[in-house]
Amino acid sequence: MDQKELIEKITNEVMNRIKDELEIQKQDNMAQSAQTDGLTARDVAGLIDHTLLKPDATEEQYDKLCEEAKQYDFCSVCVNSSWVSYVAKKLKGSKVKVCAVVGFPLGAMDSRTKAFETRRAIEEGAQEIDMVINVGALKSGNLKKVEEDIREVRRGCQKNTILKVIIETGFLTDDEKIMACQLSKKAEADFVKTSTGFGKGGATAGDIALMRRTVGPKMGVKASGGVRTLNDVKLMVAAGATRIGASSGVAIVTGQTSVESY
Amino acid sequence: MDQKELIEKITNEVMNRIKDELEIQKQDNMAQSAQTDGLTARDVAGLIDHTLLKPDATEEQYDKLCEEAKQYDFCSVCVNSSWVSYVAKKLKGSKVKVCAVVGFPLGAMDSRTKAFETRRAIEEGAQEIDMVINVGALKSGNLKKVEEDIREVRRGCQKNTILKVIIETGFLTDDEKIMACQLSKKAEADFVKTSTGFGKGGATAGDIALMRRTVGPKMGVKASGGVRTLNDVKLMVAAGATRIGASSGVAIVTGQTSVESY
Repeated sequence: MDQKELIEKITNEVMNRIKDELEIQKQDNMAQSAQTDGLTARDVAGLIDHTLLKPDATEEQYDKLCEEAKQYDFCSVCVNSSWVSYVAKKLKGSKVKVCAVVGFPLGAMDSRTKAFETRRAIEEGAQEIDMVINVGALKSGNLKKVEEDIREVRRGCQKNTILKVIIETGFLTDDEKIMACQLSKKAEADFVKTSTGFGKGGATAGDIALMRRTVGPKMGVKASGGVRTLNDVKLMVAAGATRIGASSGVAIVTGQTSVESY
Repeated sequence: MDQKELIEKITNEVMNRIKDELEIQKQDNMAQSAQTDGLTARDVAGLIDHTLLKPDATEEQYDKLCEEAKQYDFCSVCVNSSWVSYVAKKLKGSKVKVCAVVGFPLGAMDSRTKAFETRRAIEEGAQEIDMVINVGALKSGNLKKVEEDIREVRRGCQKNTILKVIIETGFLTDDEKIMACQLSKKAEADFVKTSTGFGKGGATAGDIALMRRTVGPKMGVKASGGVRTLNDVKLMVAAGATRIGASSGVAIVTGQTSVESY
């Protein structure tokens, strides 16, 4: 091998190894400039999963949720699985997607049931699935069970269904957060997501940055739990979030204080 | 119709109409005397579903749960569906039953998925199923949906499977509590149960008495949510409860203060 050839080979190897790191920095810079450029309220509407998950929410509240989602061009409405067909009918003909939560909010449901709930939700009109990991299995060090659980739901998804994995950061150590992100990526999820909003804690910029760094530049990261103002959204986007879950979407995009929290 | 015949017919009709009321009073008296006779700690162990539903609970905690259930002769251990096969193995050969929660804790899961989760749990070793009603459907006045949801799960049960319906009293008005109990009875559930422990409020003696009065003397009534001492248990039994859900079962039967709350 002559010198030129050697230099070429080493250069390629180095470039290859730092590629991911460069991508992350590019992404970070883009997010940063998005923040400094000043994202407008309307810009962020398309990032928002307009969310209503309270067990005692009524048809009237789901009607309002759908009307708002159409009016403000939110990305999706995010609901429990018994409400998927109801909101899918209301949203017919609009661009707003239907997102269903699965194994929600404890994540302690049997894997095959999570997959069944996924298939049912898709049948009824869901295009996105937000599942909760088996937190207890992760805490027990049973990583195989955690991964297989995600894979079961992935298999339940259709090809174009977006799968988000809620890792419920509030229960996890940083090591466990990293592990949960790695397993989600390995099991071919499309997004990792911070919180259910029913457990401990919610989205923090620190967790979003950690998750982004762990999954690399291509996977989605969704910030959810306690995101209530445009400023919160900007902070999350700057930290690496590409989707926002919020029950205060209208307050976020109108700048008004949220009167009713879903 | 002669006078004698008429008297006989009217008497029968009256007796028939007050039969349920007499039964309830008998039951009330029995419960009352059970209290005054002084139920011992050991007496109540057999009423207790020893409960661990926290999403971040580990294998070690489930091991302890099962050991305690065997040691104190609790009626069952009550767990989320992904842990059914694990505890069923641990309890093999003992008299302690396995109770699985379904559609837990929001009750907003699609009915067919609740039925699927039920069948899976039974396959894996559950003998009792504690499902959550669709609270939002009840709040929307969609009683048909509430009833059909319970019926779906009943169909998912095998003949000897005990079905308990969690009505989540903390979200409901008294009228709604009565309605939920009536629908549960109509849909052939074996028990009505107060609370998940994850929503608003917990068991109160007033709610237990209302539920007992509504379902009559034969159906089971389970008090759950905030039942932590032997005195709490006595109060619930006196009000008409025939089963207790508690994460503090050991504290209840030993009289010691609960160190660890599941």
